[in-house]
Amino acid sequence: MVKYSKVIEGLPSSVPFVGPEAQERNNNMKFLARLGANESNFGPSPKVLEAIKQSADDVWMYADPESHDLKVSISAHLAIKSENIVVGEGIDGLLGYLCRLLVNPDVRVVTSKGAYPTFNYHVSGFGGHLILVPYKNDYENVEGLLREAEKTTASLIYLANPDNPMGTFHSRATIERMVENLPENALLCLDEAYSEFAPKDELPDIDPENPKVIRMRTFSKGYGLAGIRIGYAIGPADLIKSFEKIRNHFGINLLAQRAAIVALEDQEYLASVVKKVEISKEGIVELASECGLKTIPSCTNFVAIDCGRDTKFAKAVLNGLIDEKIFVRMPFFEPQNRCIRISVGKPEDIELLRQKLPVILSSL
Amino acid sequence: MVKYSKVIEGLPSSVPFVGPEAQERNNNMKFLARLGANESNFGPSPKVLEAIKQSADDVWMYADPESHDLKVSISAHLAIKSENIVVGEGIDGLLGYLCRLLVNPDVRVVTSKGAYPTFNYHVSGFGGHLILVPYKNDYENVEGLLREAEKTTASLIYLANPDNPMGTFHSRATIERMVENLPENALLCLDEAYSEFAPKDELPDIDPENPKVIRMRTFSKGYGLAGIRIGYAIGPADLIKSFEKIRNHFGINLLAQRAAIVALEDQEYLASVVKKVEISKEGIVELASECGLKTIPSCTNFVAIDCGRDTKFAKAVLNGLIDEKIFVRMPFFEPQNRCIRISVGKPEDIELLRQKLPVILSSL
Repeated sequence: MVKYSKVIEGLPSSVPFVGPEAQERNNNMKFLARLGANESNFGPSPKVLEAIKQSADDVWMYADPESHDLKVSISAHLAIKSENIVVGEGIDGLLGYLCRLLVNPDVRVVTSKGAYPTFNYHVSGFGGHLILVPYKNDYENVEGLLREAEKTTASLIYLANPDNPMGTFHSRATIERMVENLPENALLCLDEAYSEFAPKDELPDIDPENPKVIRMRTFSKGYGLAGIRIGYAIGPADLIKSFEKIRNHFGINLLAQRAAIVALEDQEYLASVVKKVEISKEGIVELASECGLKTIPSCTNFVAIDCGRDTKFAKAVLNGLIDEKIFVRMPFFEPQNRCIRISVGKPEDIELLRQKLPVILSSL
Repeated sequence: MVKYSKVIEGLPSSVPFVGPEAQERNNNMKFLARLGANESNFGPSPKVLEAIKQSADDVWMYADPESHDLKVSISAHLAIKSENIVVGEGIDGLLGYLCRLLVNPDVRVVTSKGAYPTFNYHVSGFGGHLILVPYKNDYENVEGLLREAEKTTASLIYLANPDNPMGTFHSRATIERMVENLPENALLCLDEAYSEFAPKDELPDIDPENPKVIRMRTFSKGYGLAGIRIGYAIGPADLIKSFEKIRNHFGINLLAQRAAIVALEDQEYLASVVKKVEISKEGIVELASECGLKTIPSCTNFVAIDCGRDTKFAKAVLNGLIDEKIFVRMPFFEPQNRCIRISVGKPEDIELLRQKLPVILSSL
């Protein structure tokens, strides 16, 4: 019989997120609107699409394992050094590598109760001990995270800013203060997947060589490239170099590397998406308000709608939308799970929501 | 300071393969022919290219984390169940996951001295103890692998068949006998990356539910999709399911899933590639012969040319080709490193080789 490693034996064969495709297969239907995975319904820049098509003919070649050209682009875009950048198969891939570097059964990791489950999946996957800090007024609780990390001598702290699934955002001052106050021996993993939707001058200024912080960015959200799998981390050169010890060097596909370079070049398109996201969020907020529901202020490409009652009710609203072939998701933990989470979409997506949501609510 | 896990601390920040792009950057040149990474210079099917281009517009969506449709295709193609298939980010990715499942500092792993280095990289990456068995007459030594595995109570045995970097192939009978004679508690990882180039009726018949074997396949070689990163493993449902404990569920990009399905459908194109590969190999063998050099019989898309002297000489030949902007590689270990390894190419690639190789040889 196959003998699994000890940590592996104790793990469930779980999937952090079941995809909408599985729901479609199980229910023998097709979603009319995908508003559940915080994808960009607006898609990537037309220049990016053109680059993908143009690059198809080169797909017989392995891509550069160093993602050199993309790192040069990121480096120029952010005015940081290449040695402070590692490119990975989306933030999910990078979180996995980070946990592999740092986490083992002796290690404690602090995150928010209800924050990104894939991070928790990776921590547990390396046998780490998770400490969950409750949200505070729908914000990840920075003070609470610091306190628990200090108390438990945690090696790793996870914070998504802007947050997912609530969409709330901590100011530059708050995050910079957090960085200053990190406990000894704790590394902050700052997940900035949604940073393109936050106020630019409110993103924290953190020295890439700060030995206590690693930041994660992605091309899946603002840049509209979720399906191509590419993201990157920014951190101290020593830590970044250590990813070379373990990463799948040929893991990042050629089309992703090419697409990401062109995506970075087209900041005008990104700005247009950010504008559309704002308009779409306003539409969702307005609709919720017309339905008598509150929304949580969001600096992302989604809006958490407070359904105003318990999680059973929120779940019923969610199921109503799914039945109407609108893919949405909801938070997993109390008290956030009184909400449903709606990603922005094209005007027609939001129009469909406008037709269905009030009917569902009045039927419950 | 960041505290790394114990296994990680002892690892070098190494890259199993430096890409040709790094050589191009370091020497400020562009290769005229890529004959070093066993890519398919013939590219994927035109239908696959069309599918990639058509799918570009969908790249804003996360791909199905279950790769359901592709698994259905593979399942039909090989007449095996979906539950016996796991799709991954190339064989490299799957080897990494397999090692994570099975390897830890208590575990011994047997492979051939000079076989695929990325496998070794992953074994070492999880702290496993590698036992290297010398090749025998340029073949991976099946008897030797079994003997060492038995002796060391190894948990995992790696065999590439057809082999890389020598290209030799063990018959169906040999592999089936090997499977029968596997030591207790040893799993055979049978890397069949080059299986499309082997005689079809000589691929071993192994029950997918055999608890002692996992087979690896890829779309990078015969199907010409190295740059898109997709492969799969075939194994017992229990083992396959355990990949769900740890894999990056959203790691396989949407274009890869779509491309692989169409690639499998176009077996006629694959057959035409296999034919071209045969012709190209004949050209390389002929050229070597004209230069007074022997070649190793190959069931892959490359040919190992025996340069007839020591590794210093082979390295000089290799460097001569690199200087002429022909990307090639060579084995890392004695006695295989008396050879250089030339991937097949288009007629113009082989013509370039024909122009340069004799000149280089006579200059040495």
